[in-house]
Amino acid sequence: MAKFDLETIRHSSAHLMAQAISRLWPNSNIQFGVGPTIENGFYYDLEMDDRLNDDDLKKIEKKMKEIVKERLPIEKVTMTRSEAIEFFTKEKQLLKVELIEAIPAGDEITCFKQGEFIDLCRGPHVDNTGDLPFSFKLLHIAGAYWRGDEKNQMLQRVYAASFDDKNKLNQHIKFLEEAKKRDHRKLGKELELFHFEQVAPASPFFMPKGAFVYNQLIEFVRKLYVRYGYSEVITPQILDSELWHTSGHYEHYKDNMYFSKIDEREYAVKPMNCPCHMLMFKHYRYSYRDLPLRYADFGRLHRYEKAGAVAGLTRVRTFCQDDAHVFIPLSDIQDEIVQLMEMFFKSYTHFGFNKIKVNLSTRPEKKSGDDKTWDVAENALKEALLKSGHEFHIKEGDGAFYGPKIDIDIADALGRFHQLGTIQLDFQLPERFQLKFTNQNGEEERPVVIHRALLGSLERFFGIYLEHVGGAFPFWLAPEQAVLVPVNNEVHLEFCNNLKKQFDSLGLRVKIDDRNESMGYKTRQIQKTKIPYMLVIGDKEVEGNSVSIRSYGSRDSETLTIDDLKMKFLELDKLKDPSLI
Amino acid sequence: MAKFDLETIRHSSAHLMAQAISRLWPNSNIQFGVGPTIENGFYYDLEMDDRLNDDDLKKIEKKMKEIVKERLPIEKVTMTRSEAIEFFTKEKQLLKVELIEAIPAGDEITCFKQGEFIDLCRGPHVDNTGDLPFSFKLLHIAGAYWRGDEKNQMLQRVYAASFDDKNKLNQHIKFLEEAKKRDHRKLGKELELFHFEQVAPASPFFMPKGAFVYNQLIEFVRKLYVRYGYSEVITPQILDSELWHTSGHYEHYKDNMYFSKIDEREYAVKPMNCPCHMLMFKHYRYSYRDLPLRYADFGRLHRYEKAGAVAGLTRVRTFCQDDAHVFIPLSDIQDEIVQLMEMFFKSYTHFGFNKIKVNLSTRPEKKSGDDKTWDVAENALKEALLKSGHEFHIKEGDGAFYGPKIDIDIADALGRFHQLGTIQLDFQLPERFQLKFTNQNGEEERPVVIHRALLGSLERFFGIYLEHVGGAFPFWLAPEQAVLVPVNNEVHLEFCNNLKKQFDSLGLRVKIDDRNESMGYKTRQIQKTKIPYMLVIGDKEVEGNSVSIRSYGSRDSETLTIDDLKMKFLELDKLKDPSLI
Repeated sequence: MAKFDLETIRHSSAHLMAQAISRLWPNSNIQFGVGPTIENGFYYDLEMDDRLNDDDLKKIEKKMKEIVKERLPIEKVTMTRSEAIEFFTKEKQLLKVELIEAIPAGDEITCFKQGEFIDLCRGPHVDNTGDLPFSFKLLHIAGAYWRGDEKNQMLQRVYAASFDDKNKLNQHIKFLEEAKKRDHRKLGKELELFHFEQVAPASPFFMPKGAFVYNQLIEFVRKLYVRYGYSEVITPQILDSELWHTSGHYEHYKDNMYFSKIDEREYAVKPMNCPCHMLMFKHYRYSYRDLPLRYADFGRLHRYEKAGAVAGLTRVRTFCQDDAHVFIPLSDIQDEIVQLMEMFFKSYTHFGFNKIKVNLSTRPEKKSGDDKTWDVAENALKEALLKSGHEFHIKEGDGAFYGPKIDIDIADALGRFHQLGTIQLDFQLPERFQLKFTNQNGEEERPVVIHRALLGSLERFFGIYLEHVGGAFPFWLAPEQAVLVPVNNEVHLEFCNNLKKQFDSLGLRVKIDDRNESMGYKTRQIQKTKIPYMLVIGDKEVEGNSVSIRSYGSRDSETLTIDDLKMKFLELDKLKDPSLI
Repeated sequence: MAKFDLETIRHSSAHLMAQAISRLWPNSNIQFGVGPTIENGFYYDLEMDDRLNDDDLKKIEKKMKEIVKERLPIEKVTMTRSEAIEFFTKEKQLLKVELIEAIPAGDEITCFKQGEFIDLCRGPHVDNTGDLPFSFKLLHIAGAYWRGDEKNQMLQRVYAASFDDKNKLNQHIKFLEEAKKRDHRKLGKELELFHFEQVAPASPFFMPKGAFVYNQLIEFVRKLYVRYGYSEVITPQILDSELWHTSGHYEHYKDNMYFSKIDEREYAVKPMNCPCHMLMFKHYRYSYRDLPLRYADFGRLHRYEKAGAVAGLTRVRTFCQDDAHVFIPLSDIQDEIVQLMEMFFKSYTHFGFNKIKVNLSTRPEKKSGDDKTWDVAENALKEALLKSGHEFHIKEGDGAFYGPKIDIDIADALGRFHQLGTIQLDFQLPERFQLKFTNQNGEEERPVVIHRALLGSLERFFGIYLEHVGGAFPFWLAPEQAVLVPVNNEVHLEFCNNLKKQFDSLGLRVKIDDRNESMGYKTRQIQKTKIPYMLVIGDKEVEGNSVSIRSYGSRDSETLTIDDLKMKFLELDKLKDPSLI
């Protein structure tokens, strides 16, 4: 174990990397930007004439290790502002000069020097390059705008993993490799689930298998809706800007919206369903007997995101949410939240997410609604969470200005947390739309609105879940549930055709692989498709009215009678129905 | 029976109406536009200072009958162009002057005169106003732009029904009353299926019951897709104009499209799915073994329509189609069309449309693709239609420039024909997108694309079907299938609750009406909702484990045991599955 803390080691390792690059490319007009520590390591941004590639990373690592072996003392150097500016200007480190100019007057300016290399830095650092462990690895090079501003020049950013011992580094490298294998963009292509086209940036094209899974997810949620008393509605996508002024989106969210001018009126493509649901509630007269009223909507949403911010399915410009709005009297919130927590936890567990974090965010300083209302709401949420029996973490002051909220994060198979669920109270929208219902005393009362989403954006959930299962969907969700493979097309195909018909009539999704290829080749190909089951039919199976069945990822097969197989498949297929969970 | 043909009677009746209006409003600066005959009657467009209302129609009818009784002879008057212009200018009939100026030089200009009234007209007419039967009725007043151009002034248009005998008139009036009762806009509101909001013109908001029916229609088509080998895909809605240039929509359809500028690129909201499917086909490599490939898409489309052209659900600005594109070798078209005709006819019959017309439109003068290709395609369509055994009508030269097509019209319960199905061959898009597959000889071949829609726009179908069934959906499609009514809440509600749970678990949609209202009131209210069955539970039913059941529209009820009722309901509900048709 090193005598310095991990943060310091990472920080000094960033300097070490910068020094190594300086030595390797002395004539490349290198200008260093910033080199901070990050989760699991560090990076350094730099401008240079040469374009770094993956081979260079090895060279840099080697040079870093040489400098460690040189055991250079690391010394702190204090300068006045003008000395620092003069020094870095002379060194042609103009990015550093910019950084110095941004340091508040009066602050001390410190640099750290190791051998010939000197860097502007607040520290602390290890005492000597020899104190740095070899447990680092340079990962990849990316582009990054200087100071994160797309109007500035693009720098090269070198990412590195860094730990205080070799085992932890190896563990992390393994994690990264596994994550790469599971990358949903890669799996999406390989399994022919979805892809992107130049003419529609950040807008996925779901091919038949992907669309199947997508629609099954919607069906799953729809069945929950029947059970929990939700009503699905269908609302327009292009609405007059007047509506977005009323809802407040025009004021706060305009930069993420798409606009179109028609008949001299300005319309916006909806980024959210809420305002449509407010209009629907307003269109009819409701009494307390009708509440809670739960409108669910799978309407397609469009939100502009900068080209640099989008990524695969997890950050797109167009998506559907399993979005719903609950109209409810303030006094009834608690029961609704208890029911929501049940729905959320049962669903997440069904998808195999067993590590779940719940956060409750309370009133921020700037807020709408009076403190009494906030008291009632926050208490109701707390009581509901206590009643649900799940641990939760309170984020004081982290609620939206329009109401407190509950966020639910799940950990995927690689232990990465993702926010899925959200339960958001809103005092503001009912006010803006002047919503009301008749309460038990015959008076008009303003309802509270609960925005809630279970899976959130279906596109994002698709991406997260695809990585979680590594592309191997469970039986109930798999676009193809099994492949029938005749050993010999001449002899066994008819049996397969007959069997397929039986599966068809049971609503099971089984296909036949009757290509003229060897069994070994077919087996390898079928494993690549990650279809849950491969069913081989030869003489023995035809005679015994049975199949030889092998599940995905297994090397063994077993023999089942057709009847047992059907029972097994029907049982597995039942998991599509959340009423059983 | 009158001695003149119906067309002449209608035409002369239009003059009769104009004369009556002239006499009734002598100081209203009336200028007449055109007054043509139409199906079932005629109209006359006119400009006048007074605004006509429904009460005026009665007055005009009365005055028309007086003029008939005056037995004014109707005489033809021939004028030269300059005489005619002088005459109508003097009469302050400037719209008529405009019409005269548009008559080609050399054409004879004729007018018809009856008493003090003279009108520009080609004739023929009856000889005397006394020849006109009383079998006409003024229907309503609408606005209409002069010469159909929205840049011109708005005229008042008076519509009239006109027949050559009273019985036919009465029959038509009855038809109109029935059509009014069934108007889907009216039913949509009454049954809380959908409505419109100012902020989204021509873009329906489907409330829970409407959305339920809408989704059931999609489910119905989806089940057909499984049976007929279609694959559903999901595609983006907002795509770079570049795509619309490639597809030709930019050139031909731009005025009906919505545009939005993002990141300095021009994007359009899709009015059709086809270009997305072309991209998808192009993204992979296909061989003849993969064809026909059938991509289905319920993607939301947006098409700008002028404010004056939109109407209820039948002409909207946003809708989904049960749209699909079949990629197929030219040589395989015939079998595909036979399969399509089967699918279409079975479906239409399932919805209770039994009168079906098939039209085949052949090559127009201006066309893409060579004559040999057209020969193959047209013959394949003809042969397929003959094989399907349905009568069809050939519309020579009425095909699109990009391929021949089949249209299918159905008659609704009131005998009105609506086009639903379309099967459209396309040689053009595969060319524009340079699509190809590898044929049996290992060569690259260009596929043909078949655009086909079964129900067409789901919104439009919803409207047509709602009118067809007069708001009374069949059991399998009804958002609420039955209402349980306890005779006495104190005594019979528990039995109802228990029964409801049993229906729930069978996936049947039954609700309980436990309002504290009289049975008579509830019965009337339930009839208004057009729910298929009302189930009354009293002492006798609780004792006998039975229900008293009454179907919508019937005045009688019968008693059924619970088991028989469940069987009956499950049997009716099975009709949601098209594999049974």
